[in-house]
Amino acid sequence: MKTLASLALVAAVTTFAAPAFAQFAKPDDAIKYRQGSMFVMAQHFGRVAAMANGRVPFDAKVAADNADIVLAMSKLPFAGFGPGTEGGSLKNTAKPEIWTDQAKFRDGAEKMQAEAVKLAAAAKTGNIDNLKTAVGAMGGTCKACHDAFRTQ
Amino acid sequence: MKTLASLALVAAVTTFAAPAFAQFAKPDDAIKYRQGSMFVMAQHFGRVAAMANGRVPFDAKVAADNADIVLAMSKLPFAGFGPGTEGGSLKNTAKPEIWTDQAKFRDGAEKMQAEAVKLAAAAKTGNIDNLKTAVGAMGGTCKACHDAFRTQ
Repeated sequence: MKTLASLALVAAVTTFAAPAFAQFAKPDDAIKYRQGSMFVMAQHFGRVAAMANGRVPFDAKVAADNADIVLAMSKLPFAGFGPGTEGGSLKNTAKPEIWTDQAKFRDGAEKMQAEAVKLAAAAKTGNIDNLKTAVGAMGGTCKACHDAFRTQ
Repeated sequence: MKTLASLALVAAVTTFAAPAFAQFAKPDDAIKYRQGSMFVMAQHFGRVAAMANGRVPFDAKVAADNADIVLAMSKLPFAGFGPGTEGGSLKNTAKPEIWTDQAKFRDGAEKMQAEAVKLAAAAKTGNIDNLKTAVGAMGGTCKACHDAFRTQ
């Protein structure tokens, strides 16, 4: 039982820390890294969402290209919230609970990453209804985590 | 001749603007986008360079993973320097020449992107000497463009 729990912990930590090679010279670098990667992801997600919501005309190729970038970016920000990244002098909106309740935070990150996979797949179908569903689900995971772990 | 020139211009603009779907609500968004994507790229390039320079032990898998992220990121920042992205209120180090000499700037961007392709390929060989060569060439394109287009 103890071994099983240890294995589960290792698996969880490994998943969360992915890319595990992400290391920062100082907490401010981690802040810039996670803010930068989140911003880039949000810009591209915003372009897909604008099509899903009818704010801009649907273009299947543009949607698929942007969704692919969302998927690539979805893997990056969380290294910037890993062990040793608390604190720093730059203004940021990370709540302490990110580091005190890493299991819940990790769970939120993984849910978003799973929806990013579905978003990219949905965009490739070229069907706007598939895209709407995927955008809604993805947006839900963004909001859930921001509500819990980001100061408003 | 005129047609040829026009075609060349279209090709150049298309390459430069890639991803052409990148559009920003305001110049500050473009600043945050290019700074964020540059910072993420630099972090991952720094990890590869640290191995090439012997500052951290060489790990072929880590080098290849980081180089792949450098390659993916290399495509993004330049949309943030496209038409309409001049100005903005956020502190930044972009020189006006980026917009007044777009041909030279574009050329610098494309050289970096070409070296990023070589870097990712070199990292996959698992040979540290290949990596050193590619890191040197990539770093050279970073420096050339920064010297010309970034305030010091």
